[in-house]
Amino acid sequence: MSISVMAEDIKRVAADEGLTPEFIREGVDRGTIVILRNKQHAWAKPVGVGRGLRTKINVNLGSSPDMVDSDLELAKVRMAMELGADTVMDLSTGGDIRSLRISVLKESHIPVGTVPIYEAVCKLAQDGKSPVDLTKDSLFSVIRDHFESGVDFLTVHCGLTSRALPVIERRKRTTGIVSRGGSFLHKWMKHNRRENPLYEHYDELLDMTREYHATLSLGDGLRPGSIADSTDSSQVEELLVLGELVDRARDKGVQAMVEGPGHIPIHEIPANVLLEKKLCHGAPFYVLGPLVTDSAPAYDHIVSAIGGAVAASAGADFLCYVTPSEHLCLPDIEDVRQGIIASRIAAHAADIAKGIGGAEKQDLLISQARKNFDWEKVMSLSMDPERARRKRGKVGSDSQKCTMCGQFCAMRENMI
Amino acid sequence: MSISVMAEDIKRVAADEGLTPEFIREGVDRGTIVILRNKQHAWAKPVGVGRGLRTKINVNLGSSPDMVDSDLELAKVRMAMELGADTVMDLSTGGDIRSLRISVLKESHIPVGTVPIYEAVCKLAQDGKSPVDLTKDSLFSVIRDHFESGVDFLTVHCGLTSRALPVIERRKRTTGIVSRGGSFLHKWMKHNRRENPLYEHYDELLDMTREYHATLSLGDGLRPGSIADSTDSSQVEELLVLGELVDRARDKGVQAMVEGPGHIPIHEIPANVLLEKKLCHGAPFYVLGPLVTDSAPAYDHIVSAIGGAVAASAGADFLCYVTPSEHLCLPDIEDVRQGIIASRIAAHAADIAKGIGGAEKQDLLISQARKNFDWEKVMSLSMDPERARRKRGKVGSDSQKCTMCGQFCAMRENMI
Repeated sequence: MSISVMAEDIKRVAADEGLTPEFIREGVDRGTIVILRNKQHAWAKPVGVGRGLRTKINVNLGSSPDMVDSDLELAKVRMAMELGADTVMDLSTGGDIRSLRISVLKESHIPVGTVPIYEAVCKLAQDGKSPVDLTKDSLFSVIRDHFESGVDFLTVHCGLTSRALPVIERRKRTTGIVSRGGSFLHKWMKHNRRENPLYEHYDELLDMTREYHATLSLGDGLRPGSIADSTDSSQVEELLVLGELVDRARDKGVQAMVEGPGHIPIHEIPANVLLEKKLCHGAPFYVLGPLVTDSAPAYDHIVSAIGGAVAASAGADFLCYVTPSEHLCLPDIEDVRQGIIASRIAAHAADIAKGIGGAEKQDLLISQARKNFDWEKVMSLSMDPERARRKRGKVGSDSQKCTMCGQFCAMRENMI
Repeated sequence: MSISVMAEDIKRVAADEGLTPEFIREGVDRGTIVILRNKQHAWAKPVGVGRGLRTKINVNLGSSPDMVDSDLELAKVRMAMELGADTVMDLSTGGDIRSLRISVLKESHIPVGTVPIYEAVCKLAQDGKSPVDLTKDSLFSVIRDHFESGVDFLTVHCGLTSRALPVIERRKRTTGIVSRGGSFLHKWMKHNRRENPLYEHYDELLDMTREYHATLSLGDGLRPGSIADSTDSSQVEELLVLGELVDRARDKGVQAMVEGPGHIPIHEIPANVLLEKKLCHGAPFYVLGPLVTDSAPAYDHIVSAIGGAVAASAGADFLCYVTPSEHLCLPDIEDVRQGIIASRIAAHAADIAKGIGGAEKQDLLISQARKNFDWEKVMSLSMDPERARRKRGKVGSDSQKCTMCGQFCAMRENMI
């Protein structure tokens, strides 16, 4: 069955990437490219993710049980758009989740992702129930509602199945399960002694996804939460199932990408990308980080910029940003800014390595401006012009030189 | 001739690295390890740099013609020591450079490096003269004074020789020469039509270095200053000469390491490390960055954390930090902090990849503490405990949970 995307979106993605519609169409048909846009989210720009395209970045936002401030979350949506993020994910778990989701979708002119199991579990919690009380119907009705409201891509942890349970038991992890969705489903399967409903009813989920021209983001409920747990049996066991699910999505003409870790040491990252590309048959790879050390709370945006740049250089397609607040608290607006720029740096550095998207040309232009002491042009070509101007502003914008070298500027000395 | 280091320093470095004195001695004799400490800088901790040792980081500081504040520079020295930097370099080019150098050496209990040609050129400038007026004697008397005052390692651009001049002319670069030392010497050679005095009188320099048990840091005057100029003929031409100079240092029993770029795209970094290791016969590699994109002024600490982590994972031994002020202005104290932590993250992530120095164990400990909700232990094991505590502090330290997930904490749900 041909993959369900809108012809108009193929054209727009092609124009945006500076590639031909044929190239995009072929990638979509082969499943190496997905186009994020639900037919109900008409005001959103369709965004292509996958092989041969610019590396994309996602911004997580949303309330938590202890921090509900919808104005703040909508400000994060606007900042994401202003600073050049490609998508946002609303991961709300506090307050009126549904209403916030509708507002985020309305505000956002870039694709929006969600993790519907959060809303389903929060509903249960409001009624004093536990995640183990989740029913297939209640979960699928939330999923339907997400699609209907225009959510462009949904994280669903379909790959965490009962065959993983003995693997998880056999090799105890340092940090266990750190995915919230994965943790709910693991608990549910153990308590109810039944298969993961997202796996059991995967065909129904595919039909629904196809109807909305949406994309499934196959979550990694068993991603490692520490360097000690990286690339372990549990993670790879789930990845094998995700490969099966990618095949089944393609058979039904549904777009699917695969989520990846997590905490991975730098030397294991290329193997992780290779494994995903091989076991999941070239499906776009969407990674969270990866975080290359556990030891730098308050600086995890830097930790994951390192991992993200290495992963994307090795072929990962989509980076989920990480903020300085990761592992500590819900991010504030400045954290979001830091996270976005760190992630954009990683994506851009990788695009230079991949040789795509004019990234190298962009660097050439800013370096030529630097050599010509055209400071205004340097600023305007910067990834965050406001911050670059603010820092430079301290020394007066009329001066050609900077306070680093002053009269001993090497570039001025040598007009070679 | 056996390499001139103090036996006591071999023992102290071995203890510091958790390795045997024999391992260190062998590395020193083969030239794959250098120990930074001038016999005149008695109060400094000797620091080993090279193969099999923890990746080290250096903090640049010092005045510029437009910014002279010795209290600030000494505060940077103290911050470097507090935050776990391994060395500092005083790159002063403004005010009373000699007096500031003496103060930095007095303050610093970690090795101090300098670039003596800066002081020599600044002296000329004070007399209204140009770098082309530099004489061999004036330069060498500054070098002698640096050694005598206790400077542990000296950057000397001995490898930029007259044979590079036609190479530089043949392939015009986007950003020309961006090394200040390289730029002075290039101008000097062209104007005086004579060989670089640091190359011509290299043997005399070696004898002096040996006398003080100091280390030569062979500078890369032709390092690329933009992605467009990376790994070009000029850079590799100089690297070949540096390889010859490493051999000649070893023949005279003198410690030498080699400096490296600069602006290098991520996919070229491993080849750059390999080239240095092969052409310079395993000499320790000291890299500035590398910066994996030119496009993020105000965030170059992140840009170079990416490059530094990749370089050190591939075998680089010593990372020179880069601050958010790079390319914009002289760093303030907060910039120094950001630069140090970014560089420490890169070095630590690489040490996990290299499998040395207990880096992996460190991550295991913090992750076990995280899993046990032992927040105080997480904070104390963090790379920057103060910042981690400050961020976490916003939500109250009595609470076990964090505001990211609250009651929906995956690690709490799953005590597996």
